[in-house]
Amino acid sequence: MQRPSGRAVDQLRDVRITRHFTCHAEGSVLVEFGNTKVICTASVEEGVPRFLRGEGQGWITAEYGMLPRSTGTRMGREAARGKQGGRTVEIQRLIGRSLRAAVDLKALGENTITIDCDVIQADGGTRTASITGACVALADAIAYLKEKGLVKGEPLARMIASVSVGIYQGVPVLDLDYPEDSGAETDMNIVMGNDGGIIEIQGTAEGEPFTEAEFAAMLALAKKGIADLNQLQQAALAQ
Amino acid sequence: MQRPSGRAVDQLRDVRITRHFTCHAEGSVLVEFGNTKVICTASVEEGVPRFLRGEGQGWITAEYGMLPRSTGTRMGREAARGKQGGRTVEIQRLIGRSLRAAVDLKALGENTITIDCDVIQADGGTRTASITGACVALADAIAYLKEKGLVKGEPLARMIASVSVGIYQGVPVLDLDYPEDSGAETDMNIVMGNDGGIIEIQGTAEGEPFTEAEFAAMLALAKKGIADLNQLQQAALAQ
Amino acid sequence: MQRPSGRAVDQLRDVRITRHFTCHAEGSVLVEFGNTKVICTASVEEGVPRFLRGEGQGWITAEYGMLPRSTGTRMGREAARGKQGGRTVEIQRLIGRSLRAAVDLKALGENTITIDCDVIQADGGTRTASITGACVALADAIAYLKEKGLVKGEPLARMIASVSVGIYQGVPVLDLDYPEDSGAETDMNIVMGNDGGIIEIQGTAEGEPFTEAEFAAMLALAKKGIADLNQLQQAALAQ
Amino acid sequence: MQRPSGRAVDQLRDVRITRHFTCHAEGSVLVEFGNTKVICTASVEEGVPRFLRGEGQGWITAEYGMLPRSTGTRMGREAARGKQGGRTVEIQRLIGRSLRAAVDLKALGENTITIDCDVIQADGGTRTASITGACVALADAIAYLKEKGLVKGEPLARMIASVSVGIYQGVPVLDLDYPEDSGAETDMNIVMGNDGGIIEIQGTAEGEPFTEAEFAAMLALAKKGIADLNQLQQAALAQ
Amino acid sequence: MQRPSGRAVDQLRDVRITRHFTCHAEGSVLVEFGNTKVICTASVEEGVPRFLRGEGQGWITAEYGMLPRSTGTRMGREAARGKQGGRTVEIQRLIGRSLRAAVDLKALGENTITIDCDVIQADGGTRTASITGACVALADAIAYLKEKGLVKGEPLARMIASVSVGIYQGVPVLDLDYPEDSGAETDMNIVMGNDGGIIEIQGTAEGEPFTEAEFAAMLALAKKGIADLNQLQQAALAQ
Amino acid sequence: MQRPSGRAVDQLRDVRITRHFTCHAEGSVLVEFGNTKVICTASVEEGVPRFLRGEGQGWITAEYGMLPRSTGTRMGREAARGKQGGRTVEIQRLIGRSLRAAVDLKALGENTITIDCDVIQADGGTRTASITGACVALADAIAYLKEKGLVKGEPLARMIASVSVGIYQGVPVLDLDYPEDSGAETDMNIVMGNDGGIIEIQGTAEGEPFTEAEFAAMLALAKKGIADLNQLQQAALAQ
Repeated sequence: MQRPSGRAVDQLRDVRITRHFTCHAEGSVLVEFGNTKVICTASVEEGVPRFLRGEGQGWITAEYGMLPRSTGTRMGREAARGKQGGRTVEIQRLIGRSLRAAVDLKALGENTITIDCDVIQADGGTRTASITGACVALADAIAYLKEKGLVKGEPLARMIASVSVGIYQGVPVLDLDYPEDSGAETDMNIVMGNDGGIIEIQGTAEGEPFTEAEFAAMLALAKKGIADLNQLQQAALAQ
Repeated sequence: MQRPSGRAVDQLRDVRITRHFTCHAEGSVLVEFGNTKVICTASVEEGVPRFLRGEGQGWITAEYGMLPRSTGTRMGREAARGKQGGRTVEIQRLIGRSLRAAVDLKALGENTITIDCDVIQADGGTRTASITGACVALADAIAYLKEKGLVKGEPLARMIASVSVGIYQGVPVLDLDYPEDSGAETDMNIVMGNDGGIIEIQGTAEGEPFTEAEFAAMLALAKKGIADLNQLQQAALAQ
Repeated sequence: MQRPSGRAVDQLRDVRITRHFTCHAEGSVLVEFGNTKVICTASVEEGVPRFLRGEGQGWITAEYGMLPRSTGTRMGREAARGKQGGRTVEIQRLIGRSLRAAVDLKALGENTITIDCDVIQADGGTRTASITGACVALADAIAYLKEKGLVKGEPLARMIASVSVGIYQGVPVLDLDYPEDSGAETDMNIVMGNDGGIIEIQGTAEGEPFTEAEFAAMLALAKKGIADLNQLQQAALAQ
Repeated sequence: MQRPSGRAVDQLRDVRITRHFTCHAEGSVLVEFGNTKVICTASVEEGVPRFLRGEGQGWITAEYGMLPRSTGTRMGREAARGKQGGRTVEIQRLIGRSLRAAVDLKALGENTITIDCDVIQADGGTRTASITGACVALADAIAYLKEKGLVKGEPLARMIASVSVGIYQGVPVLDLDYPEDSGAETDMNIVMGNDGGIIEIQGTAEGEPFTEAEFAAMLALAKKGIADLNQLQQAALAQ
Repeated sequence: MQRPSGRAVDQLRDVRITRHFTCHAEGSVLVEFGNTKVICTASVEEGVPRFLRGEGQGWITAEYGMLPRSTGTRMGREAARGKQGGRTVEIQRLIGRSLRAAVDLKALGENTITIDCDVIQADGGTRTASITGACVALADAIAYLKEKGLVKGEPLARMIASVSVGIYQGVPVLDLDYPEDSGAETDMNIVMGNDGGIIEIQGTAEGEPFTEAEFAAMLALAKKGIADLNQLQQAALAQ
Repeated sequence: MQRPSGRAVDQLRDVRITRHFTCHAEGSVLVEFGNTKVICTASVEEGVPRFLRGEGQGWITAEYGMLPRSTGTRMGREAARGKQGGRTVEIQRLIGRSLRAAVDLKALGENTITIDCDVIQADGGTRTASITGACVALADAIAYLKEKGLVKGEPLARMIASVSVGIYQGVPVLDLDYPEDSGAETDMNIVMGNDGGIIEIQGTAEGEPFTEAEFAAMLALAKKGIADLNQLQQAALAQ
C-alpha cells in the first residue's frame, strides 16, 4: 500500500502553527495540516451565558465554518441559506466540548471564551486541525486574561490536540488527507490531552464494521500523532 | 458502589420491543429501555434523494425528536422554535449513519427508507434505544419490500444494536439511566453488528480524560450488552 | 347510507382515555377515538407570559404536532422544515382557546399550564380527540396544583369536550373517521362544556353551502356526542 | 344597551366598495366597513400549484396582512420578524377556503387566482371585510379571464359575503367595530352565499359559553347583514 | 428623444401629498409621484433601542414594503417567504439613514419614530417617493411630540426630499417612471435638504460607465426637482 | 489636520494583491488595504440562474462575509443567527453589480462566476478592498475559461477598482481607515473602470449635508486613488 501523498503510515502532514495571525482577537492562530488551513481565534468576553449565571465559573464555546470555496467545488454559504448544516453543528459541538476539557472552568471565573474555527482551505482533517490550532489560540487568550489580572490561578488544565486515523486500503494510517479520507473504510477522530488521557473518540465504519484489533492499531497511531502535535504546540507557544 | 437502580454493573435495564405499534408505517416499533420509551417507524418511499439519482442504489435516512414533555422539565418544541437543536441534529445523523451500516444499499435498489425516532418518555440512553428499536422497524420495512417484490436479493446486511457505557463513581457500568448519565465521568455510545463488528464508537470525557484501561473495560461491557440486545431483537422478529 | 365503519349515525367510535400515560408531566393522557391516538400532556410552570405579568391571573396555552408517520403517507417533520404549517397553527390556537374556557384564570393564580397534543396515529378527528383528552390532563394538572397548595379555590370552571359532525353522503353523522372526513360535504367541530354551553363552533362547507336545517341536525348530534364524552371523562377521572 | 357607535343592533357600518382601486391587478377593490379599510386584489396566473397539476381544475388561494400602523399601536412587521403570526395564518386560510366556495374550480380551468387582502386601517372586522371585498375583486378577475377567452363557461358559482356578529353587553349585535369586539362576550364570523347557503361559521365564547338561543339570534342577524352586503356587492359590480 | 410620458426632461410627474391618510398614526401621508403611490406613516414610541439607552438622544428607523400586487406581475409576499429581500433591506436602510439627517436626534430626546413606507402601487421611483412623503409624516409626528410637550426645542433640523435622475436614450432626465427606469443606462437617486445640502447620492451605471459630465447634468436636474418637491412639502404642511 | 495614520490626504494605504492565495478556486486573491484583509475567490460554474436560462448570456454574482473576529469586538456569526444582516446584503449587492460592469455578459456565454469576499481582518474600507481584489480574481477566472476553451472572444470588458473618500475633520481624504471612517462627516465609495468611467457612486452625509464643492474634491481624490489601484492590479496580473 502506497499513501497518495507518499507519507509513512504513522507520519503527520507538515504541520504549521502561526500565532498572532490576525490582529484583533486575544488569541489568533493559523493552523496548517498540509493543505488544510484553518484560522482559529479565541475571543474573550466578560460574563457567562444565562444558564451559568451566578455559578462562579466560566465557559468555552466554539463555532466552525468553511469559506464557500475552501473546497474543490463551491459550497453554498450557510449564512445565505439561513442555517448551519448538520455537519457544521456536529463539528462545532465537538470543538467546544473538547476545549472545555482543556480548561478548569472554575479557575476561569465568570468569563467566556468563544473559539471560531474558519476553514480557508480544506484537504481533509479540518476538525482535528481546528482543535489543535484552537487550543493554542485558547492558551494565548488565557495568557491575556492572566496578564490583565482578570483571572487568578491557572485556568489552562492541559493542552489538547486532535488527529484523525483510519483504515485505508486495509492498512491503519495517521492523519488522513482528502484523497485518503474519501476512500477510507473507517475514519476515527481522537482528542487527547498532553497527559495522555483520552478526551474524545469518534470512530465510524464507513462501509464494513471494523474489529477491535483494527481499533487498537488506530489508537496507537493516534497516540503517536498527538504526542507529535503536542510538541509542535509547545514550540509555537515558546516563540 | 451501588447503582441507583440496584442493577449489576453489566446488567441492561428491562428492554421491551413491541412491533406493529402504530398502524400506518411499514415498520413501527415501540422500544423501551426501562423508562426510556421511543416510537421508531420506518417509512418506505420509491426513489432516492437527488444526490443519488441514477446510482442504482437506495438510501436510509433518519430523523429524531423528543416530545416536549418527555423530560422532567418541559423543553421548547423544536417546530415552534423553527429549528432543530444541535443535539437533535447530532443524534439523527448518528442514527442514519448507523442504520446505513445495517443495509446493503445496492440490494435495496432505488428505494428510500426514512427512520423516525420519537421519544415519548426519556430516562437516559434515548439514542441507543432509538438505534436498537429502529433496526427492528427497518427489518420489517425491508420484509415489506421483499414481500411486495420491490427488491430482489437481501438488503439487510446485518442487525445492529446500540448501548451506552460509562464510568459512574469510578466504576464502568452498562446502559446508563438518567441519574447515572447526569453524574457520569465518561459516557460512551457504541453501535455494533450482530457479527461483532464495531460500527460506531463515540466516547466523551465529561470531566477528566479517561485511560485506555477504562476504555477497554467499557468496550467489554458494551459487547456483552449488545449481544443481549441482539437476542431480544431476534426474539421480537420471530414473533 | 352505510357508514364505512358500520356505526350508527349518532354513534361515537370506541373512545378510551388512559391517564398517567407518561411519567414526567403533571397531567398525561393517551386519548383514543378509534384509531386516532393522541398523547396529551399538561405541564405546570410558575409564572405567566410577559403580556400577563402583574395581572394576577394564570394562563393556558397549547401546542399540537403530528409524528411524521402518524398518517398513511409520511409528512415532513415540521421541526426539520423550520416552521409549523397553517393547519398546525390553526389547531393549536383552537385547543388553547377552548381550554381557557374550561378554567377560571383568576383562580389559577400566576401559573401557566402548557398543553401538548401529539398525534401518534391519525384517523380523522385529531383536534376533537386532542381537546377531549387534554381537558382530562388539565384536570390532573390542576389537581396537582391544589395538592401542592399552589392555588386556592377551584380553577377548573367546567369540563369541556369536543367532537366532529358532518354531512356524509347527504346524511348528518357524528364523529367522522378519515374515510368519512375526506369525503364529507360539510365538516363541523364543536366544543361544549359539561353544562351544555357552546364554547366553539367551526363549520365549513367543503363543496356546496349547507342549510340551517342541516346545521341544526349536526348541532343535535354534537350535543349527544359531547354528553357521551363528558361521561367518559368523568369515568376516567374517577379511577 | 347603547352601541358605542350609536348604531341599531342590526345595522351595518357604512360600507363602501371601490373597484379598480389600484391599476395593475386583474381585480382590485378598496373595501371599507366604517373605519376598517382593506385593499383586496385578485391576481391571475396561468397554471396551478404542483399538487393540482393534471387535475384539470383551477385554484384560489389567499394571503392576508396588516400594515404595521393600521392599528392603534404599531405592530411589528411580519416580513421583518421572518414569519407570519398564528392569527394571520388562520385568517388567510379562512379567506381562501371561503372564496373557493364561490368558484367552480373545474370551470376555472388550470388557472390560479391569488387574493391579497392588505389592511391599511383597522377598526374590527378585518376578516369579514376582506372576504366581502375580495369576492368583488375575484368577480372582476374572472370577468377578465372570460374576456380574454381563457376560460369557458362560468367559473363564478355564487357571490359570497361575510359579517361578524356577537353578544355585546348581553345583546346580540351585527358587525362589531373595535370597541365592541374587544368587549364582546361572544364573537362569531359567518360567511354565506347570495343563495342563502352557509359556507363557514366560526363562533367563539370569549368568556362564558353561549346558548343555542343566543346562537340562533346571532345567526338571524348575520343573515340580514349578509343580504345587505350582497346588494352592495351587486351595486358595485353594476357600475 | 421623446419621454414615454411626454414630459419635459426636467419635469416631475404630478406629485400629490395627502396628510392624515390613515387615522391611527401620529403622521400618515399618501404620497403619489404619478402612478407610484406609497403610504408613509410615522409612529412615535417612548424609549430608544438598546444600543442607545442612556445616551440622551432619540432614534429614527424605517421599514419598507410593497404590497404583492403593487407591481405588474405579483411578487411573493415577504412575510410568507420568511425574509425581506436584498432590495427591500437596501431601500429601508436608505430611508432611515436619510431621515435621520432631517432630525436633531439630541433634541428628539429618548423617543423613537418608526417610519413605514408601504407601496400600494408602483411605477418607478418608489424609494424617492417614500423619502419625500415620509419626511412630511415625520414632520407631523414631531409636531405631535411638541404639542404633547414630549420634546423641548426643535427636533426637525430640515425638510428633505428625494428624486431619481438618469440617462435615458442618451439624455439626462428627471424623475424616471417605470418604462424609463427599466431602459435607463444610468440611474441615480439623490436626497437633499431644503438648505441645498446633499445627504445621499447613489448612482449606478446599468450598462456602460458614465462620465463626470453626465454626472453633473444629472445632479443639476436633481437639484431642480428637489427644490420643486420641497415646495410641495411646504404646501402640504401649510394646509 | 493630521490623519491618524500620518498619510497624506491623497495617499492610499499600503495595498497588496496576492494571487493564487488558496488552491481550489479558479481565481483566488488576498487583497490588503493596510490592515484590512479580504480573501476574494472567483468560482466558475457552467450554466446560469433560472431567470437567465436560454438568454445566451452569463452571470456574475457575489457574496460577502466577515469572520466573526475580523473586528475589534466579536460579531455574531451570520450563519448561526440564521440570516445575513442588512449591511452584508447591501455590500454583496454592490460587489455583484459593480463586477457585472467589468464583464461582457454575452461574451461570457452561459457560465456563472460567483465571487466570495470574506474579510479576515477589518480596518475600514472592506467593500472597496473587496471590489478591487475581486476584479483580479475575476480576471483569473476568465483567463481559466479562455484557456479551457469554454468562452470565445473576451468577456473582460474592463478592469474596475474601488476606493473610499470622505470628509475627515473638514478635509477631504482618500482611503479611510477605521479611525477615520468612524469619525468622518461624509463617507463615499466610488467604483470606476480603468477607462475612467464611473460605475457606482454612493455618498452619505453622516452628520451634516455636504456641498457640491466637497463632492467635487472627493471625486477628484477618488479618481487619483483608483488610477493607482488599477496600476497595482495590472502589476499583480503581470506576475
